[in-house]
Amino acid sequence: MQLTPIGVIHSPYKERGDAPRQGRLSENEITLEILPEFVAALKDIERCSHLIVLYWGDRANREILQSRTPFSEVLVGVFSSRSPNRPNPIAFCVADLIRQEDNCLIVRGVDALDGSPLLDIKAYAPALDSIPEATNGHIPKSLDEISKGKKRNA
Amino acid sequence: MQLTPIGVIHSPYKERGDAPRQGRLSENEITLEILPEFVAALKDIERCSHLIVLYWGDRANREILQSRTPFSEVLVGVFSSRSPNRPNPIAFCVADLIRQEDNCLIVRGVDALDGSPLLDIKAYAPALDSIPEATNGHIPKSLDEISKGKKRNA
Repeated sequence: MQLTPIGVIHSPYKERGDAPRQGRLSENEITLEILPEFVAALKDIERCSHLIVLYWGDRANREILQSRTPFSEVLVGVFSSRSPNRPNPIAFCVADLIRQEDNCLIVRGVDALDGSPLLDIKAYAPALDSIPEATNGHIPKSLDEISKGKKRNA
Repeated sequence: MQLTPIGVIHSPYKERGDAPRQGRLSENEITLEILPEFVAALKDIERCSHLIVLYWGDRANREILQSRTPFSEVLVGVFSSRSPNRPNPIAFCVADLIRQEDNCLIVRGVDALDGSPLLDIKAYAPALDSIPEATNGHIPKSLDEISKGKKRNA
């Protein structure tokens, strides 16, 4: 199972400590530059207000299976959390699409480090993807509480 | 960028035509079997009601860049839609976690074909992932309308 980059992410986050905890906490405009051979796959993308963005966490540690969240001292499995470190570091963000400029998408809500390889983009569809009643013992319910969690250096 | 399978999906969908259009339309219980070496990454997963499940669409066509949705005769880019065919066929579902049985998760809401390689599992967090106000010109607003779209053989 070999991935091919469909593009590259240009972001102001140069190192791990620069990026916000989660994409939804990123206020900056981020550029998703699509390689010329994949531009046809963007047709009519401006009809989507939000996009699922998958990118490769090329600076992640693939050996870590448990870590502490910013919200507790208890170790939890990486499959039970949103740790960037995991066996396949496919990072997931829901991004606001601001506009398309030729082969670039200008988005908000992506926490990628500068230069991260872009893997996939999908239309976000509330009927499929929005589950407001979901509950979760590891991640707070509001963005405000998420932003206040403890900084970790894993 | 090389992926490693973290497990395998056992589902009643044996061929492309068997699977529902989208994971949220799948009523069946599906089993995510995690390989023994990754079981530690499941710690405390039962505190999550919903999971983001990423799997490899091993029967997808990676060359297709535009296709028709079930809802229109207009070609749209695969990055503007939820086509299973795309350059990196990383399929995405939000699953209901029903229960854990040792190294297996029993879930609902996954449309994977039987035997699909499992790539990643993440906690679903409404504060990050639920955007009910998102709009989309290609996919209807309700699951009921989505289920009524035209069957395609791509």
